[in-house]
Amino acid sequence: MIKFIVEKLLTMNIPNIDLPRVVIIGGGFSGLRLGKNINKNHYQVVLIDKNNYHTFQPLLYQVATSGLEPDSIAYPIRRTFKNHKNFHFRLAQVKRINKKKSSIKTSFGTINYDILVIATGAKTNFFGMENVKRFSIPMKSLIESLDLRSKILQNFEKAIYVNDIKEQEKLMNFVIVGGGPTGVELAGALGELKKQVFPEDFPDLDIRKMNIHIVEAAPRILASMSEEASAKAHQFLKKLEVNIWTNTQVTDYDGELVSTNGKVNFYSDTLIWAAGVQGAPLKGVDASAIGKGNRIIVNEYNQIHGFENIYAIGDVALMETETTPNGHPMLGAVAMQQGIHLAKNLNRISKNKKKLPFKYKNKGTMATIGKNLAVADLERFKFQGFFAWYVWMFVHLMLLVGFRNKIIVFINWAWSYIRSDKGTRLIVRPYKKKKPKKERIIKTAKSV
Amino acid sequence: MIKFIVEKLLTMNIPNIDLPRVVIIGGGFSGLRLGKNINKNHYQVVLIDKNNYHTFQPLLYQVATSGLEPDSIAYPIRRTFKNHKNFHFRLAQVKRINKKKSSIKTSFGTINYDILVIATGAKTNFFGMENVKRFSIPMKSLIESLDLRSKILQNFEKAIYVNDIKEQEKLMNFVIVGGGPTGVELAGALGELKKQVFPEDFPDLDIRKMNIHIVEAAPRILASMSEEASAKAHQFLKKLEVNIWTNTQVTDYDGELVSTNGKVNFYSDTLIWAAGVQGAPLKGVDASAIGKGNRIIVNEYNQIHGFENIYAIGDVALMETETTPNGHPMLGAVAMQQGIHLAKNLNRISKNKKKLPFKYKNKGTMATIGKNLAVADLERFKFQGFFAWYVWMFVHLMLLVGFRNKIIVFINWAWSYIRSDKGTRLIVRPYKKKKPKKERIIKTAKSV
Repeated sequence: MIKFIVEKLLTMNIPNIDLPRVVIIGGGFSGLRLGKNINKNHYQVVLIDKNNYHTFQPLLYQVATSGLEPDSIAYPIRRTFKNHKNFHFRLAQVKRINKKKSSIKTSFGTINYDILVIATGAKTNFFGMENVKRFSIPMKSLIESLDLRSKILQNFEKAIYVNDIKEQEKLMNFVIVGGGPTGVELAGALGELKKQVFPEDFPDLDIRKMNIHIVEAAPRILASMSEEASAKAHQFLKKLEVNIWTNTQVTDYDGELVSTNGKVNFYSDTLIWAAGVQGAPLKGVDASAIGKGNRIIVNEYNQIHGFENIYAIGDVALMETETTPNGHPMLGAVAMQQGIHLAKNLNRISKNKKKLPFKYKNKGTMATIGKNLAVADLERFKFQGFFAWYVWMFVHLMLLVGFRNKIIVFINWAWSYIRSDKGTRLIVRPYKKKKPKKERIIKTAKSV
Repeated sequence: MIKFIVEKLLTMNIPNIDLPRVVIIGGGFSGLRLGKNINKNHYQVVLIDKNNYHTFQPLLYQVATSGLEPDSIAYPIRRTFKNHKNFHFRLAQVKRINKKKSSIKTSFGTINYDILVIATGAKTNFFGMENVKRFSIPMKSLIESLDLRSKILQNFEKAIYVNDIKEQEKLMNFVIVGGGPTGVELAGALGELKKQVFPEDFPDLDIRKMNIHIVEAAPRILASMSEEASAKAHQFLKKLEVNIWTNTQVTDYDGELVSTNGKVNFYSDTLIWAAGVQGAPLKGVDASAIGKGNRIIVNEYNQIHGFENIYAIGDVALMETETTPNGHPMLGAVAMQQGIHLAKNLNRISKNKKKLPFKYKNKGTMATIGKNLAVADLERFKFQGFFAWYVWMFVHLMLLVGFRNKIIVFINWAWSYIRSDKGTRLIVRPYKKKKPKKERIIKTAKSV
């Protein structure tokens, strides 16, 4: 009996069948695409994730700003793989990889693999600033977005009771660090709340006191896009009364004062950290395999050096080629393509065909600032404004997983468009701000 | 300066104007209706709630069973009162009433009233069973429903890893205490998950091991409805493989074993408490004014004895009349009617007209068990099944606050109907089960 249990735990209750077992860690864009496209007549597939849902990260900022409900941009992983044979989802936290034994240890036992795919994505990079990590709010997960939503709304509810003007401004000041797409989209959505929603919601407050700041280290926002897109986005944000501070880096934050290396400091209760991500590799990956930005170095087949049967795909993979000396950008589009490509390669291997190297097809990048205000850099042409906004909406709707989610998001957007409203302004679980760590008082014996 | 701050806090930053101030505590069915219908040319209205949203409680069970997203059945209170002049919403926890000073103390200062309306609703009644309170999950709030949803889904994810059959059954057993509308509707929705959703979601589990039990103290479920409705609901639940234990009372629960006074005990990880509610009055209400079920005794104008200017409406109010010797049933319909009626009376008072006594117009009661399976007792006729289900859907859609919510809920229902699916099976915040309290070990000095 005991032996039976132990054995089951060793396999996480995955049945042993006569097919090579592919274990995928992570149900993001890349892991999900790989799982869907791999031929399950030739492989047994196990997908492990710490959540039971896939998150559509590009729309997290809309959850944070009361535009969408969390359930609309998340999708149950089990549902995606309904009726897929030889497929097993397991909700577990992966602890470490044991390459010698070809196994991984999880919070619910150990499992052996024939082929391992690391698709663990990216995590927030605070560049070693502990205070910023402690007091700021990042926006990489559904829970963080919900926390940010609660925080924004709570601050306004509190501001009503506050009579000290400095205190009130602290509550109504929002500092976003990072002028990439996430920071820009978030700032735009906050700008819309300021212009359209909050004046009606909070007649007791002077909403002009609400200030939105973007702090960006580079000389321009959306630095990864064209100068044209950058300039137009700047202009759109100004229209929504967002203050932009380029060439400025945040250096510290104590929960109240945001210090920078520039001319300006901010007094703010809310610091939103959208300034950087890094790879999220697992324990058990050799230090020599970790490259720039904490990502795992892979060859053009997404293989990790020295291991024929271990792959990394998506944000966590660093494929340094002649055209991409710093690896590919950490984008959903790259992740999807790598997932699909690896599935194709594994399917080719099972038919004894040669693997093909990965080539990223850049379909362009887009960012939306507000209603009718978006910027798009496509391969052949660049455009901004009204049309870019429609294209952005259409593309994001199509990329969302699940038909139900597509409809619900569409209705929410149509609603916001017609009514200039954001429908889900609920503080379901209040956000609790972290208190500063108390310094430890070491009692020393008094010398007598 | 200090005096200024103190004064502001005393008024919770409500401007002083030359109208009598009505303070409403609670934004449920009754408080919301009162706030909307009272004439704000004659009164200044302050509505206080601990949440910034109104919850449509009759559909909480659908949030718990992955049928609806939380945001669809909740509505921002500020939005309801957009553009209402002389209206102020305050997010605060009310601590106590000071009748002598005509003021109430809240978590954000003290406020004076001319007229006070207590609309604090009901809370769960555990009938003094501390263990049950500690380990069971009630379902009176949005957060509790979300916790229950997470718990149900987590149990199934865990059950995959468990090899001990008894342990597995414990995770897959659901015991619902209370065969009223809440218990019956929840059991039906769980039955649908068992029949339609979980077999496809969890191919690694034998879903036949999932057991759903209703434990009801009375001789029949839906005891407040007609025998006809009761019998039919019983039959519908059987169709969905729900076990019904009438004449049975739960006596204890240690987190594993549900003890009853009947022939059967249950081994279950999940005890859902839908067995009773009680009034939720505030501190400062005289003990003599508290009647049966912890409700506040009111006269036919919803006034509290001895106070011309303090009212209680909705679930918390106990109006004992000849036709209602035990007060009105604790239903949304009563609450709405009392809110509207009190608004009418206050509007009459402001015009020096006589108050009218409240008369409840019973429009009937309904409960839905599953797709095409509902029961309805209307004033003139009773019906069950397909037609009752349509009527139930229509009535609930119409009662939902907000057009956006109506559409989103409708689409979710249409989706579930066509696809026999429940779309929002996400564990966003995992539920953490409470551990049993450790008994305190008292060290006694050893006698030497």
